[in-house]
Amino acid sequence: MKALIISADNFEDMELLFPYYRLKEESVSVDVASMNKGRIKGKHGYEAEANKTLKEVNPDDYDILILPGGKAPEAVRKEERAVEIARHFFKKNKPVAAICHGPQTLITAGLLKGRHATCYKSVAQEMKEAGALYEDKEVVVDGNLITSRQPSDLPAFLRELVKALRRI
Amino acid sequence: MKALIISADNFEDMELLFPYYRLKEESVSVDVASMNKGRIKGKHGYEAEANKTLKEVNPDDYDILILPGGKAPEAVRKEERAVEIARHFFKKNKPVAAICHGPQTLITAGLLKGRHATCYKSVAQEMKEAGALYEDKEVVVDGNLITSRQPSDLPAFLRELVKALRRI
Repeated sequence: MKALIISADNFEDMELLFPYYRLKEESVSVDVASMNKGRIKGKHGYEAEANKTLKEVNPDDYDILILPGGKAPEAVRKEERAVEIARHFFKKNKPVAAICHGPQTLITAGLLKGRHATCYKSVAQEMKEAGALYEDKEVVVDGNLITSRQPSDLPAFLRELVKALRRI
Repeated sequence: MKALIISADNFEDMELLFPYYRLKEESVSVDVASMNKGRIKGKHGYEAEANKTLKEVNPDDYDILILPGGKAPEAVRKEERAVEIARHFFKKNKPVAAICHGPQTLITAGLLKGRHATCYKSVAQEMKEAGALYEDKEVVVDGNLITSRQPSDLPAFLRELVKALRRI
């Protein structure tokens, strides 16, 4: 079992580190990919080690994709390779879990049309305009897609994420 | 199932919030107790809501005690009520999970003599002087006592904590 987290500097610390630690608790191997290898820094000063560049990622190697929030998705969504990786997961119907601003990468990838989803409140308008069926709930599951709004939704987000992993 | 977290300002954010969210994921009810009710602030700027004062806590109501680290334990260990609560959990053989500087409250309570345990490296000397059998491992389980060293040990810490809860 292998998980991929895509993020960058200014990630929302808890939204990256909570899934990262939680998956390690489940003995799932986790790679963190970013534009460059090395440490990326969260808004609150925590650090995470990006052990892959986006270019190095072979999405076939992974069972689940996690897109944390913060300001990182603003940069991630501009990376064509990140958008391609997201499309791969949807095409193969593999779980994608995005929280807060994380779904912005999925909006750019054009993957949310007609899909039930949620996100941080300031992203809601953009999500609706992308054709998503936005819901203001702690977690929304629609097929392979798991979305949440904010750090306080992490318990529900991880409950569904781990459930999806156990179905694999 | 009910959990009690005891902490104060300057808690290590991840060490309080990760168990807090993780237990909520398991649908465990969690109270946070501190000297006063209201928001307490972590070293990295996250906040947690202390919904009980130490005086209000009836330890009989709880199945597990969690002591996160940071600078909070330095203040918590000076509170006689916090020390009494910790003693209650040991007397009743209920799980106590302490990480980083968290075990300092157990040292003050005189609860670690002859017990296998770990803690943050700067606390190790004090822990040994209190009679504990210190081990430099990501998690040490000795009967009801679960201890870890630092935030990066959280996956192992929570794995054992959840295991202990499932035995109740």
